[in-house]
Amino acid sequence: MATQRRESVTVNSDLGEAFGLHTFGNDSALMGLIDIANVACGFHAGDPGVMEETVSFAKQQGVRVGAHPGLPDLVGFGRREMKLTPEEVENLIRYQVGALNGFLAKYGIPLNHIKPHGSLYGMLARDEGLMLSAVRVAQDYQVPVFGIPGSAHQRVAEREGVRFVGELYVDLDYNDDGGLIILRQPHATDPERAAEKAQRAIEDGTIVTVGGHELPIEFDSICIHSDTPNAADVAVAVRAVIA
Amino acid sequence: MATQRRESVTVNSDLGEAFGLHTFGNDSALMGLIDIANVACGFHAGDPGVMEETVSFAKQQGVRVGAHPGLPDLVGFGRREMKLTPEEVENLIRYQVGALNGFLAKYGIPLNHIKPHGSLYGMLARDEGLMLSAVRVAQDYQVPVFGIPGSAHQRVAEREGVRFVGELYVDLDYNDDGGLIILRQPHATDPERAAEKAQRAIEDGTIVTVGGHELPIEFDSICIHSDTPNAADVAVAVRAVIA
Amino acid sequence: MATQRRESVTVNSDLGEAFGLHTFGNDSALMGLIDIANVACGFHAGDPGVMEETVSFAKQQGVRVGAHPGLPDLVGFGRREMKLTPEEVENLIRYQVGALNGFLAKYGIPLNHIKPHGSLYGMLARDEGLMLSAVRVAQDYQVPVFGIPGSAHQRVAEREGVRFVGELYVDLDYNDDGGLIILRQPHATDPERAAEKAQRAIEDGTIVTVGGHELPIEFDSICIHSDTPNAADVAVAVRAVIA
Amino acid sequence: MATQRRESVTVNSDLGEAFGLHTFGNDSALMGLIDIANVACGFHAGDPGVMEETVSFAKQQGVRVGAHPGLPDLVGFGRREMKLTPEEVENLIRYQVGALNGFLAKYGIPLNHIKPHGSLYGMLARDEGLMLSAVRVAQDYQVPVFGIPGSAHQRVAEREGVRFVGELYVDLDYNDDGGLIILRQPHATDPERAAEKAQRAIEDGTIVTVGGHELPIEFDSICIHSDTPNAADVAVAVRAVIA
Repeated sequence: MATQRRESVTVNSDLGEAFGLHTFGNDSALMGLIDIANVACGFHAGDPGVMEETVSFAKQQGVRVGAHPGLPDLVGFGRREMKLTPEEVENLIRYQVGALNGFLAKYGIPLNHIKPHGSLYGMLARDEGLMLSAVRVAQDYQVPVFGIPGSAHQRVAEREGVRFVGELYVDLDYNDDGGLIILRQPHATDPERAAEKAQRAIEDGTIVTVGGHELPIEFDSICIHSDTPNAADVAVAVRAVIA
Repeated sequence: MATQRRESVTVNSDLGEAFGLHTFGNDSALMGLIDIANVACGFHAGDPGVMEETVSFAKQQGVRVGAHPGLPDLVGFGRREMKLTPEEVENLIRYQVGALNGFLAKYGIPLNHIKPHGSLYGMLARDEGLMLSAVRVAQDYQVPVFGIPGSAHQRVAEREGVRFVGELYVDLDYNDDGGLIILRQPHATDPERAAEKAQRAIEDGTIVTVGGHELPIEFDSICIHSDTPNAADVAVAVRAVIA
Repeated sequence: MATQRRESVTVNSDLGEAFGLHTFGNDSALMGLIDIANVACGFHAGDPGVMEETVSFAKQQGVRVGAHPGLPDLVGFGRREMKLTPEEVENLIRYQVGALNGFLAKYGIPLNHIKPHGSLYGMLARDEGLMLSAVRVAQDYQVPVFGIPGSAHQRVAEREGVRFVGELYVDLDYNDDGGLIILRQPHATDPERAAEKAQRAIEDGTIVTVGGHELPIEFDSICIHSDTPNAADVAVAVRAVIA
Repeated sequence: MATQRRESVTVNSDLGEAFGLHTFGNDSALMGLIDIANVACGFHAGDPGVMEETVSFAKQQGVRVGAHPGLPDLVGFGRREMKLTPEEVENLIRYQVGALNGFLAKYGIPLNHIKPHGSLYGMLARDEGLMLSAVRVAQDYQVPVFGIPGSAHQRVAEREGVRFVGELYVDLDYNDDGGLIILRQPHATDPERAAEKAQRAIEDGTIVTVGGHELPIEFDSICIHSDTPNAADVAVAVRAVIA
């Protein structure tokens, strides 16, 4: 089964997280190295001009585009948890996915998927009620959701008949319960170690947690963060493994 | 021709301009009195929750829904002019129209039209280059644009093959050159006077400017502002004229 | 002791929570009925123009002015909890208090106190580390903090040598553990019931919780929310009790 | 006179223009090379955390700190002109200056001056009514204003008894009428050419416009933009001239 998955494993990255004159991440280096871009929609980062450029660039490079909606918190980059109702979560995801879709329409690109950003991603991984809000939007657009294998992401998506794309993170650490440790600040990642993580996960179907435990993981896509200073090196190393 | 237009004259209103806990306008009273709602998209007013409720309410009342994109200026309610490039205007309209369309998709309602808000409306009435940006978005969605008859709104739309819906304003005054005098603060309107303006425009095809001049006007829809304190009374009076 | 406190009990209200063209609350009716205004500082509500008008109005009516800093969340009106670090809390309180102080300087009014708003108020009532951030700012301005008697508000303020002003709420309910039940939406309050609550608290030094339990309370000021639809009636009724 | 001015010419730079996780400019390299920092106040860039760090860093390096208030437009970085009333300009400057002053209070640093940012700077250089708004705030804080020599900046400040500090720009070009050409995007500056401009202005008291005309200039401070990619090299070169 590992061999079978190997062929289909994709690389995705969160792009379009610049804001006005404020640049962010390594979009230009990464776009040619990935299969799928998760594009910020203006709430945690991104703005209409950045979204236009990112979608245009993705089209030019043949990269598929999904929506990467975040919490309404530019200063916190969507990495500060907020207490929201399921209705609020659905509305803010719907708003952002629609906004991105406006740019996709311009370039005749279909929406590929929805992947919540930062703390919203974490909140939805733990709370089935909130995750259902994201799934409702995915149903209307008939697209898959990306998320953490085994979490509420997967459980709710599959229960509601929405395709789930499990992700492996090679530049973040995993808690002993399989949860991701999302940091506020970007940090460098050793490309070799990232490649080893990818290889082990592909071949053995396991990850090693911060506590040294081995956990099984089933995934379809590897996420590489664009704000890792050496993100392109990480992408090249991981690409070599999955090729 | 006046008689012919008479049957098709619609009443439209700018709705969904609440913001969070901050209410605005007379949406609940107006929704049952109008044909078409121009719904704010979050830049000058409105937020994802308000948009959801407004679209849901419009569907329930059988009111058609268009996008009402504004300048990115909540404090100024989109009524403070900004110097923007055509690219910026296209991007911010596209973002907002897409966002609204996300809510329309939920309710299975088609986007009816695009009508820029406030100072953006005024800027586009005077500047063909900026108006072309709005028209580009309308082309992608294949919807008409609403605007001021005889202005750049109409010239650019028609030149680019986009249907133009001319508006008559009964709660704002007209300059001697036919431009609208857009106020920052809402003010009461005499329903009787509004009805007379509507009747004169429908029957004679003319408006009277602040300077007392008579100008010809061709229009398809009458706009009633929701923040006029007695907006519902104005709507009832105008309805009586066009019925 | 109840008699002694009685003379000094003040009435405070959260004012200046309009935003741009969006009005809010009953400021004009309340300003003449209260002793102290907690003025919003632009993060949960208020904007520079609203702040200017509110401070000017308070000066004219002889009302003391404190800062009412909130979470950076206009759509949620500062009533959606956010996970923040103590540094973030200190910085956002310091920013907002400074901003308000700019308007006080114009009118030669001293800053009277600091009272956090909404969910920030609740977060600081429960978390001593976060409350210390507010206290640090109060120390720099040498002003008291307003808060919930017996909560982290009081404990941290007094431990750090900052004067604490305990509040009684007559338009909100109390949990059985003495915490406030903060609602997202304004609701009407029975003026008579509010007056009874005030009277009981002043005379017996107790409140009755939602679970029917009697809890002791020591307080110096009664807060009346401006967004209670009948806030002025509530203020008049409470005034009659404390006069 | 040139010799006399030479001793007192300072170097200032616009710093603290990062935003959340979005870095900006060359603050760490520049802080040790300048005399005066104009610190962004959250409207065009900067946020409470960035302001805290910038003020702390300036104190540590012995750099004087002024307020650098901008238009309320994060996406446009305060470089998109807005039509504002004098009251609006006064309120938004007062808000931002007060907010910055909150951080200065923490570190016991006095506010050094006020220097409007970007398009606000340009608007105030041309419009005496708007400039008067900035001067009103400077009067309350009893600090000078920085601006363009010979413009409304200088005329209004001096008429109202506020000290004016004229600036020379070595990384921007001048129109033939002495106005600055403010670009939306940062661009590299030849350090040698910048040093020559500074030297000529100091020794001859003149600048050369884009049209090749020589204009007289009286100034007290040289501004170096932090977002010029090679800003530190420019600062070093200019420092060598004025030392």
